[in-house]
Amino acid sequence: MPIEKITSRKSSVVKNAAALLQKAENRSEAGLFMAEGARLCADAARSQTEIAACFFTENAAKKYKDYLDPVLKQTEHAYCIEEHIAPMLSDTKNPQGIFCVCRMPKRRADGLPVSAESDTRPCRHVLVMENIQDPSNMGNVLRTAEALGVRHLALVGTCCDVYAPKVLRGSMGAVFRLGIRRFETAEDCLKVLHAENITSLAAVPDSDATPITTIPFETGNWAVWIGNEGNGLTNEAIEHCHDRVTIPMRGRAESFNASTAAAIVLWEMERNGAGGTSYG
Amino acid sequence: MPIEKITSRKSSVVKNAAALLQKAENRSEAGLFMAEGARLCADAARSQTEIAACFFTENAAKKYKDYLDPVLKQTEHAYCIEEHIAPMLSDTKNPQGIFCVCRMPKRRADGLPVSAESDTRPCRHVLVMENIQDPSNMGNVLRTAEALGVRHLALVGTCCDVYAPKVLRGSMGAVFRLGIRRFETAEDCLKVLHAENITSLAAVPDSDATPITTIPFETGNWAVWIGNEGNGLTNEAIEHCHDRVTIPMRGRAESFNASTAAAIVLWEMERNGAGGTSYG
Repeated sequence: MPIEKITSRKSSVVKNAAALLQKAENRSEAGLFMAEGARLCADAARSQTEIAACFFTENAAKKYKDYLDPVLKQTEHAYCIEEHIAPMLSDTKNPQGIFCVCRMPKRRADGLPVSAESDTRPCRHVLVMENIQDPSNMGNVLRTAEALGVRHLALVGTCCDVYAPKVLRGSMGAVFRLGIRRFETAEDCLKVLHAENITSLAAVPDSDATPITTIPFETGNWAVWIGNEGNGLTNEAIEHCHDRVTIPMRGRAESFNASTAAAIVLWEMERNGAGGTSYG
Repeated sequence: MPIEKITSRKSSVVKNAAALLQKAENRSEAGLFMAEGARLCADAARSQTEIAACFFTENAAKKYKDYLDPVLKQTEHAYCIEEHIAPMLSDTKNPQGIFCVCRMPKRRADGLPVSAESDTRPCRHVLVMENIQDPSNMGNVLRTAEALGVRHLALVGTCCDVYAPKVLRGSMGAVFRLGIRRFETAEDCLKVLHAENITSLAAVPDSDATPITTIPFETGNWAVWIGNEGNGLTNEAIEHCHDRVTIPMRGRAESFNASTAAAIVLWEMERNGAGGTSYG
């Protein structure tokens, strides 16, 4: 792998990469996104994400050698950048000095990345997020889904971009491996899930809805829908789901944070397998 | 209630209030903190938090009359401020224009506020947080604890201030009602919990620890310890707890976000009562 040196902030290679940080449109048009940090870049390589370019400072190359080596084996282009260029490629306050331009993974019909060593057992549990806007929430939900073994997510409406820098970091790389499908409308998503024989449940903060603890997640195929941070699910989603479920609350609380609600739902989907050997 | 007009940004009343936003030391020295926003201020009044001063813009007084009225009934001083002063008292980008200077509630030995209509049943479940630094995490954990009915928290070491503006907002006012105790060291906290006949469990991301699903939270008294965002619990805490517990994970994930781990622990503490009538 020949390594090219970049010393100028005017480098078009750097500018094109930096544009990927700015807008979802830039990323989707190019089919590329930026991963930042030694761990995340190594994780991209390990997850068989295609790496179009790797940028690193000399200091970072020394400090994070073990992370960088597998990335350099896989990348199509490698660039050693001067320290003063690192902030242009960074979305963080203190960049580590390692960055990758990655190709968005090709995904199967069920959303799983084609090239990764994906767990391709049939999809039994799906978390659906409708209009989730906060990148921290989105990243955290993806991280939690992977940790708990829920491999399929559906994003409906105006959810934030999973390839946004903050989502990627918060997800701890789960974006590289999870099954992720996007739908423009609740109706589109419901149709597809229905055709896959998956029962959709709308999570709502209503005490008269079915308690989440009574859903037999161990049997059958289930999707639970979580709504926007401020407004919850749309009426369209609630009306067309098969049932409404709720996480029972006490005290004065009126709702959970969206990523907390998602975490409890994900946990309930899988908890009966947790601690035993029946993970499935 | 006579209402004083404030037109100058040099007002010492405003400056003293603004100082409470800046530093935990300013708050603890004065025994005061700032609540911002119509809902949070109304919530403070409703939770019988003593209100030393209320600041509001004319626009806010019209727009949020129903929220402001109960606050004005309780506050010791009321100030109508001009619009240009609101940002001085605000920690948010778009201030609503309603602010309260509140007295920190006096707390009982178990941490519950003395004056609130606290639920004073004995303390059976405690969430212990050690060195939790992120105000978003702290606020979210408090909100979740209240929603799930866990009324007792213990903060060990260098946890962020629960009266910080971001924590207060994230907690949705739970700070006004929950039992909150602070301890300098893990040892101090363990001693007190032990004397209260509460068994301490250290939450760790180790697959050989006891699965959280096997703890009989319905019987006995339990405290679960959650550690710092980056480093987890200190060795001191882990060694002196009665047992180590874990939230079983799959896939490549190495850990949960601290507030997600706390949410799952809080939910497990209370889930067997959820959906039924045995909430306790």
